[in-house]
Amino acid sequence: MSRSLKEPAAASTITTPTDREIQIERVFAAPRDRVWRAFTDPELVKQWWGRGNKLVIERMEVEPGGHWRYVEHGPDGVHGFEGRYREVTPPERLVHTFEWDGMPGYVAVETVTFEDLCDGTTRVVTQSLFHTTEERDGLLHSGMEEGLNQSYAALDRLLSSS
Amino acid sequence: MSRSLKEPAAASTITTPTDREIQIERVFAAPRDRVWRAFTDPELVKQWWGRGNKLVIERMEVEPGGHWRYVEHGPDGVHGFEGRYREVTPPERLVHTFEWDGMPGYVAVETVTFEDLCDGTTRVVTQSLFHTTEERDGLLHSGMEEGLNQSYAALDRLLSSS
Repeated sequence: MSRSLKEPAAASTITTPTDREIQIERVFAAPRDRVWRAFTDPELVKQWWGRGNKLVIERMEVEPGGHWRYVEHGPDGVHGFEGRYREVTPPERLVHTFEWDGMPGYVAVETVTFEDLCDGTTRVVTQSLFHTTEERDGLLHSGMEEGLNQSYAALDRLLSSS
Repeated sequence: MSRSLKEPAAASTITTPTDREIQIERVFAAPRDRVWRAFTDPELVKQWWGRGNKLVIERMEVEPGGHWRYVEHGPDGVHGFEGRYREVTPPERLVHTFEWDGMPGYVAVETVTFEDLCDGTTRVVTQSLFHTTEERDGLLHSGMEEGLNQSYAALDRLLSSS
C-alpha cells in the first residue's frame, strides 16, 4: 500500500464566514505536535512555505510581539511578506498579522488553530480578518488558492518524509 | 497682543463615524506645508510627538512601503510604536498603519488629511480604522485623548516657534 493512500484527501476548504474574513480548513496526515513544528520552526517553514521556491527567513521570533519576515525568490520575482505575532499557544493556536510587500499597509490578522483529530491527523484552520471587504476580495481573486495548495502540498511532502 | 490669542481654539474633536473608526479633527495655526513637514520630517516629529518625553525615531521611511518606528521614553516607562506607510501624497494625505508594542498584532490604519483653510491655518483630520469594535473602544478608553492633546499642544508650540 503506498503512503499516499493513507493520507486524507488533500484539498483545502475555503469559505467566507463574514464579509471581512476568509477561512481555510485542511487536514494533514501527521500528529499535531509535528504540524505545529512545521509552522513554527524556521528550518521546517523554509521547506514548504515557498512552494518549492527559495525562501529566506529574515526574522521569525515566535513569541507575542515578535516579528516575522519571509522573502520568497520565485521565477516571477522576489516577494516579501511580514507581520508580528500576537499570540503563541503551542501546539494549539497562533495569531499573527500578515502583510505582503506588494500591498504595504494592508494588514490581515491570521488566527491559526491546530486541532488534534486523535487518529494521527491534524486539522489546521486559518481564519484571516481584513480591515475591509475589498481587501478580502482582492486576496481571494489574487490566485491565493493556487499558491496555498502548492504550499500545503509541499507541507504534505515534508510531513510524510520526516 | 499675545501670540496665543491669534491661535484657533486648541481643541481636538473626536468622533466615531462607524463602529470601527475614530476620527480626530484639529486646526493648527500654520500653513499646510509647514504642518505637513511637522508630520513627516523626523527632526520635527521628535519635537512634538513624544509630548515632552524623549522620542527616539528608529525608522521613518516616508514612502509607500516604508516602515516607521518611534520609541517614547517617558516617566512611566518605554513605549514603542510602529507601522508602515501605505500612501504618501504631499502635502495632502498620509496613510499608514499604527501598532503599539503593548498590543502587538493589533493594527489600525490611519488616514491623515491636511486641509488648507486658505487663511494660514490647516485642518488635520485623522481617521483610524480598526479590525474590531473592541480594539477601537480599547483605544478610546486608554487615555488616548489626553495623550493626543498633549502631543498637539507640543505641535502648536513647535509651529508657533518655527
